[in-house]
Order: sequence, then structure tokens, then C-alpha cells
Amino acid sequence: MTGPVPQYPTSLGTSDADTITLLGQNLAEDLMGKVGFGELALWMVTLKRPTPSEVRVFEAVLVALADHGFTPTAIGARITFLSAPDSVQGAIAAGLLGGGSRFLGVTEDCGQFLAATLAQADAVPADEAGFDELALTAVKQARAARKLVPGLGHPVHKVRDPRTPVLSKIAAEEGLRGPHLSLFEAIGRVHPQVLGRTLPLNGAGVCGAVLADLGLPLELLRGFAILARCAGLVGQLAEELRTPIASDIYMSVDRNAVYVAPTPPSE
Amino acid sequence: MTGPVPQYPTSLGTSDADTITLLGQNLAEDLMGKVGFGELALWMVTLKRPTPSEVRVFEAVLVALADHGFTPTAIGARITFLSAPDSVQGAIAAGLLGGGSRFLGVTEDCGQFLAATLAQADAVPADEAGFDELALTAVKQARAARKLVPGLGHPVHKVRDPRTPVLSKIAAEEGLRGPHLSLFEAIGRVHPQVLGRTLPLNGAGVCGAVLADLGLPLELLRGFAILARCAGLVGQLAEELRTPIASDIYMSVDRNAVYVAPTPPSE
Amino acid sequence: MTGPVPQYPTSLGTSDADTITLLGQNLAEDLMGKVGFGELALWMVTLKRPTPSEVRVFEAVLVALADHGFTPTAIGARITFLSAPDSVQGAIAAGLLGGGSRFLGVTEDCGQFLAATLAQADAVPADEAGFDELALTAVKQARAARKLVPGLGHPVHKVRDPRTPVLSKIAAEEGLRGPHLSLFEAIGRVHPQVLGRTLPLNGAGVCGAVLADLGLPLELLRGFAILARCAGLVGQLAEELRTPIASDIYMSVDRNAVYVAPTPPSE
Amino acid sequence: MTGPVPQYPTSLGTSDADTITLLGQNLAEDLMGKVGFGELALWMVTLKRPTPSEVRVFEAVLVALADHGFTPTAIGARITFLSAPDSVQGAIAAGLLGGGSRFLGVTEDCGQFLAATLAQADAVPADEAGFDELALTAVKQARAARKLVPGLGHPVHKVRDPRTPVLSKIAAEEGLRGPHLSLFEAIGRVHPQVLGRTLPLNGAGVCGAVLADLGLPLELLRGFAILARCAGLVGQLAEELRTPIASDIYMSVDRNAVYVAPTPPSE
Repeated sequence: MTGPVPQYPTSLGTSDADTITLLGQNLAEDLMGKVGFGELALWMVTLKRPTPSEVRVFEAVLVALADHGFTPTAIGARITFLSAPDSVQGAIAAGLLGGGSRFLGVTEDCGQFLAATLAQADAVPADEAGFDELALTAVKQARAARKLVPGLGHPVHKVRDPRTPVLSKIAAEEGLRGPHLSLFEAIGRVHPQVLGRTLPLNGAGVCGAVLADLGLPLELLRGFAILARCAGLVGQLAEELRTPIASDIYMSVDRNAVYVAPTPPSE
Repeated sequence: MTGPVPQYPTSLGTSDADTITLLGQNLAEDLMGKVGFGELALWMVTLKRPTPSEVRVFEAVLVALADHGFTPTAIGARITFLSAPDSVQGAIAAGLLGGGSRFLGVTEDCGQFLAATLAQADAVPADEAGFDELALTAVKQARAARKLVPGLGHPVHKVRDPRTPVLSKIAAEEGLRGPHLSLFEAIGRVHPQVLGRTLPLNGAGVCGAVLADLGLPLELLRGFAILARCAGLVGQLAEELRTPIASDIYMSVDRNAVYVAPTPPSE
Repeated sequence: MTGPVPQYPTSLGTSDADTITLLGQNLAEDLMGKVGFGELALWMVTLKRPTPSEVRVFEAVLVALADHGFTPTAIGARITFLSAPDSVQGAIAAGLLGGGSRFLGVTEDCGQFLAATLAQADAVPADEAGFDELALTAVKQARAARKLVPGLGHPVHKVRDPRTPVLSKIAAEEGLRGPHLSLFEAIGRVHPQVLGRTLPLNGAGVCGAVLADLGLPLELLRGFAILARCAGLVGQLAEELRTPIASDIYMSVDRNAVYVAPTPPSE
Repeated sequence: MTGPVPQYPTSLGTSDADTITLLGQNLAEDLMGKVGFGELALWMVTLKRPTPSEVRVFEAVLVALADHGFTPTAIGARITFLSAPDSVQGAIAAGLLGGGSRFLGVTEDCGQFLAATLAQADAVPADEAGFDELALTAVKQARAARKLVPGLGHPVHKVRDPRTPVLSKIAAEEGLRGPHLSLFEAIGRVHPQVLGRTLPLNGAGVCGAVLADLGLPLELLRGFAILARCAGLVGQLAEELRTPIASDIYMSVDRNAVYVAPTPPSE
């Protein structure tokens, strides 16, 4: 190669013969047994040791998103484990690959929508009325562009998503209620004026608002939903080992297959 | 389908219009803000609320395994993120797929080896001498079968892996030093008699011993290493956003490609 | 479940005790040894047996996209294979996950761009001059929206991508030069007027144009690039078995890691 | 880094400003439109241009393995596409991750079993009687070790797998019936003497035998099953776009979830 050998800067893990360093800390002496897992996960992203309040809010988000029962992510992980029991990592990866735009993606979409709306404003609103005004503009713009407002509505919790008020309350208790959450709540108040019906603020959305208020990178909000779900999928696989259902899912699909003579799509 | 519609039992997440239930608990009221993320991850596998001691030991393992710098998992995640920045879930999944037999698999292999050795014994040894005797048999058997003893040796920490004594100490402090860890330490004492040289007990191995002592399913020990690494990979991707290196890795490989005329392997 | 058992229609594979049916054909009697692999792949998407001309053009696209040397997909697959040699499927999956917006995605983006442009026009242009006019409008619109025109430019083939004229010629030879390819070539002629410099029409782009002319679903064009690359990755892993390089890549990154004290991003 | 910059040898793809080279051939001039996709896939592994006979046998294997209807791989890909429609590569990767030991792995397991048996013998048997004798020994050894003989038996095709005689015939027609296939057929003849019942030689198994006779690397036989299935999954996703079923699968599982109070496994 012409030119110098590349160097690869990092502030995360390094090691030599005697010591493992992570975030500038001695992993064995300073972190193991002294720092929680959620705390470390947050620290690795922000590069700043989180406060106990930040950890509580962050872990409440992860707890909220860890498992929602037999979602596509859980079904994907279990059916892959049935087929490839030799590869736990493959089953978990397959499940996480369902963490896309339709299911786990709402957290990121909502955080991005709130941040973009705040970036449009001249200043962060000073009071609830100010947030309501900003929210009204944003919902009107979304409607005019025929776009959904991320974080509004839920297929099961049609009136109220139980996670939303609880996470708002926790953020407030910890002094971490920021502009993203304020704007999200304002959307909850004003959207019926524009949309003509009342939708609940959903749990994935409030998680996005809270993660954005924690200062986490917007491009990675989906990554935290993925981390939460990773724990959930380990739980799903443990249950699959105890009480297998993937074979029944497979059989219920395969035995109810109905052959339809192929008709080319364009004919 | 002939026969009844299958039913799918679960003790994890379920929900109705008003409530989300996880592990028989009200997710919003009883878990969010009250239960830590590592605590929930452990509970979802054991189905029993863990004690604070169990959580501390479990989280120490996750912290120990979260990130080891520029490993294949980190490189795989970063290079995939470079190529497909639209899919954070794909970059994380790609990284986790490196959690196989050679790197993250040692945790599981070691737990399984220790459990299989204990299952061979008539009874759990009563004292250190008893563990030494059992360890000696196990190491001799492995050597006779030309197999490696999982958890012994490390490419960088050639004399002592700093995580091993610390995790042993934490387990002891919390009253969770069980037979797997005792056997692992015994292997550390006796293996030089058989192998003719002294190798360190490595960190991945001691994590496997401790997870097995926590009563976690042996087939899933690798899953906990994957969960830990998932947090590490989110940190690696956050760093890649701040200080990209994947393009330099790609260029350093591509520009140093040397074309070699194809020679069929069998000729 | 309340309501009837779901049924799952399919025109692809089904089987009973004696027979395997695929696309309404007897797999063993009518397909094996009589139908090529590329032919079958195309048939499974279109549900219509492709003509030899369609197969030739389709396979030329797959050949064009199969391997481009040490790309992120190849590096990702090899480094994952190093780390998890027990799971060939994991290594291939990790590599394919790099088939996202930046690398393999151009094929799909280009096909979609051409189709959207044609859908805007009142009618398919009747001659080269008509295509040039439509292309000019499309390039101007893209520029006004500060968007790139997919399929234009290449980091290595700065003047001319050798695949582009060859694939155009093959499509013409087989009578399969359709409006997408005509529009793509028109973009090649007119873009310098708008952009002020001359960029090559790249190979990934012409593949997208040709796949769209074959009538393949636009949402899946990336899938054909993935299929092509899947063959390439099997070749890369075979080479990794013969002449391993993944460990050298890993070492060259790990040994050139430079620790930088963490500075929180917002400070 | 101390020491020289690593260099990365390859015989696959390289390129410069004007030319793309693959396997020492000019990609655009010598391969596109002139070489089939299956032919290229085989060539990239063997590094030798395959004969038409080799291509026919190889493509017959890929055709045999491309799609088996609503298998776990198809369900995994479709359910992931439902959840993350933004990432076709993720849906395909998730499906392929089901290509493990239980389903697609039989091809590799069978090839490895046959090769290991042949390696044990002093010489390749000269006639059918010799293969029968070797097969008898191998089946007896497997039974004594309480191991299954890979390639024997099928859950649906209980008497005869229709792919097996057809692939044998194709290999014979092309002069590519080698010792692995001869041994596999001998297992079909002799196993009832040892096992006390007659099982069919299955299609995945005969594919493994034929791929081994083609001289392909045994560690990668699963990779060819993955390649074949990749084409099948693109077909499954095309069908999912036309006739979606993943949402019905998801609903049929979610609505039939039955909550069971958690009982810790060890109690």
C-alpha cells in the first residue's frame, strides 16, 4: 500500500498482557462488580459516566422494550433456533433482524421526528403553550405530506398505552424531562384538532423521546431497542428450550399450505 | 388443518388493551423504573426474581464480556454499518454472528465442560482436595482425547487474565461460589501437572463457570455473551459515527490485495 | 383463536409422501437436470418460465454482481468465519447484511429511480430524443432536490465502467432492451449538461435498469444483488479456507488501535 | 504496527480504472453473457472452469435444494420482512440463518460422513460388493456410537425421496458418479440389516454425496445449500409481496398465546 499504515483510534476497549481497559477504566478493578450492565451500555455511547438518574431512566426504557410476547422478532428467533439449534448467535441475530421500520423502528423514528421538529423552531419553547403550538405545526405538516406522526396509535392499546405515562413520570422524577418528551406530550394533546380523532401516545414513541432527551445519537436510537430486545430474545430461547413451540408454528403453517396455480403477476 | 388449532404457552410477555404483562408482573406498574435491565434479563431466563447478589454477579459477567476492543465482532459490525448504514439492526446482527465457537463461544464451552465433569462425579466434591482430584481426571481425559480444556490460556494475557480473580472474588462476596467455579479454579491449580506448563484461567471461562453456578441453562450460556456483546456493539457503532474507521479498514484491505493466478486446489 | 384456522396460499414448493412440486412442476422429473439454477431463480419470482433470452440477460446480471473482490461484504463474511467457523450460514448472512444502501443497494435505487421517472411521463418516449428529454428533466429534478442520480459515477471506474456497455449489448442482442435501459443510457448522454461534468454509468446501475426491464418487482431488485453476492461469498469463504487472510485483517486493526481518552461528544 | 504491512492474496475479483478481473478473466468481456451463474459459482470455488457435465450436476443440486415450501427458513424470512420491510437483505439473512444442523445441514453432514468413511478404508472399493461392505461397517459404527447416519430417513417422504434416484441418474449420465455417491447408495442397500427397518435415502443426503464427488470442500457443503436457498428465499419474498401471509402467521401465534404462570425450571 502506498502511504502510511492506518491507525485506528478508539476510546473503548484495549488491552495489554496484564490489563484490560475500557473507557479509560481498568475493567477488572474499576468496572466489574461496581458498574451495572445498563450503566455500562449507556457510558459506552456517551463516553461519560452516567448519573444514577440517567441510569434509572435508561434502564426503564430497556425494560419497556425488552419483550412484547410473540412478536415477529420472537417468532423469527424461535423458528431459527428450531432449524439451526447449533447456532444460538444465529437465532438471536435472526430475531434482531426483525427490528426494522415497522416494529422496533418506531423508537428511532419518533426520536428523529421530535428532534427535527425542535431543530425547525427558533428556540426551545418556554412553556406548555409553546410546545403545543410547535406540536400543532408539526402534526399539520405531517398530515399535509400524508405522513404518519411516529409514536401515535397502537394496534392493541387503542385508548392508552400503559407505558407512556409511567415513563413520563419516571423521567420527571429524575429531573430528565427534556424538550423531546415535552414536545411528544404536546403532540398527544393537540393531534385530535388536526386528525379528527384521538390516538394514544405509544410506548415505543415515548421511549424514543426519552432516549433523545438523554442526548443519545439519533441515528442509533434503534440500537437501544435492539439491545433491549436482545435480552428478551434470550428469554424467549430459554422458554423455547423448556416449552418448545417453534415446531408447532412450523407445522401449523406447513400443514395449512394451499397450493395455488402460479399466475404470472403481470397477466 | 386436521386437528385442533395449536396453542402457544408462554410465561413471558402478553398484553391486552389496557395492560402489558411480563413474567406475571404488570410491566408499567411493577417493572419499569423498579427493576434493572440486567435483573430483568436474568429473571426472563430463570423465571424467578433474582436476588441482589445474583444480579451483581450476573452484571459483573456482562460487564466483563461487553467489549474487548477491535475484535472480529466489532470489525464485522463496523464494516457492515459502512456498507449498509440504513440498517443498524443488520450491523449489530452481523457483529453478533461472530459470536461463535472461536471467540465468544468459550464461555459456553467452559460451562458445559465443567457441568459434564461434575455430572461424571459420584458427588460434588466436599473440599478443595476433592475438586483437585476431579479436575486432574478431567484434564487428563481431555489430553488423552487430544482436546483443549476450555477456559485455559489466552493469546494476550499469557500469565494472568485480570478478570478471573476479580470475578471469583465477587462470586465469593455474594455467597455464589458454586461447584462449577470451584472446579474451574481447581483446573487452574492442577493442569500444569498434566500439560507440563502453566496457563492462565481466562475471563471467558470464568464467566462460563459463574453463569453455570447461577443455574442458567448450559445450552444458552453463549446467549449471555451475545447479550453482553450487543451492548458493546452499540458502543462500537456510536464510536464509528463519531470517529469512523471502517472505511480505512476496507481501504487497507482492498489496496493491499495481491492477485494470485488461480491454481485449482487439487492440482 | 376465534375464527377459522388461517390457510397459507403458495405457488412455490409443496410436497406429499411421493412427490415434490415446485411452481406446479414435478421437481424431480421436470426441473432437476432440465432447468438451470438462474432460470429457476427467475421463474420463482415471475411465476412464468423464462425464455432463453431472459435467462441469458438475467444470468449476465448475476455474473456482473457476484464478486467485486475485497468489499465490505467479503471482509464481513471472512472475519465472521474466522470468529465463528462452526457456522457457515452465519458468515454468509453477515456478509449479505452489508448489501445495503451504500454498496449493493445501487441496483435497486437505480431501478426504482428509472421506474419512477417513467411513471411520471405521459407515455414511454418513442425515440432517443424523447428519452433524452425525459432524462434531462429527471436529472434536473434530482439536482434541484440535492439528490444523487443513482447509477452515475464510480469510485474506481472514473471514466467508464466496463460492465455497462456489455450489458447493454447483451440486452439488445436478446431483444430485451426496454424503456428502463433506454432511459438509463439517455441519462448517460444528458447529465453533463446539468451536472457540468461527465460521470460514467456504473455497473450496479445498468443491472438495475436491466432487471426492471425484465419486469422484476422493484422492491426486490436488491434481492437479486444479494443472490449474486451469495455465490461470491461462497467463493470468498472457499478462498479463506485455502488462503486465510481474516486473521491478518483482524491483527492489522487490533495492533494499530490507538487509545484516545474519551471525550463526551457534546463537550 | 511493527512489521510489514500485510498483503492480501486473492484469485477472485480485482479491478483497476478500466478493467474488472474475476478468476483471471475479464469480467465484462469474457464472463458476462458467456458464463452461467451456476457455472461461475462453481468456478469461484474450484478455481477451474467447470465442464458442462459438472455444471449440469451442480445446478441439479441447487435446483433440488432451492425451495421446500413453508420451511423454517421461508417462515423466518417472511416474518422478518413483515417486521423490517426496509431491509430485504435482513429478511434473506434471517432466513438463511435457519440453514443449520437440522434442516439444510444434512447435505454437509452427509458429505462429511461419506468422506470420513472413505478415508478410513484402505482403498476406494472396486465394486458394488466392496462398497456394501464399507457401508455396512460405517452403519454399524454409527449405531454403536448411537449416532444417526446422515442422509437416511425423511419426515414426509417415508418410503422414497423422489430426488434421490433422479440425481443419481443425472450424475451417472454425466460420468460424475464417484465414490461418495456409490457409498451413499450402498448405505441405502445395507442399512436395513443393521437398523432393522428400511429408510429412504433423502434428497439432502444425495446432494451432499454428489457435491463431495464434485471435489468441493467438505467444510463448505452447507454453503451450497445456503446459495440454493437464497434463490428460494427471493422467490418466497416475491410471493410475500404478491400474497402476504406473514401477518396471518404472526396473528395466529399471538392470538393463540396462553399465559402460564412462571415456574422456575429447577423447582
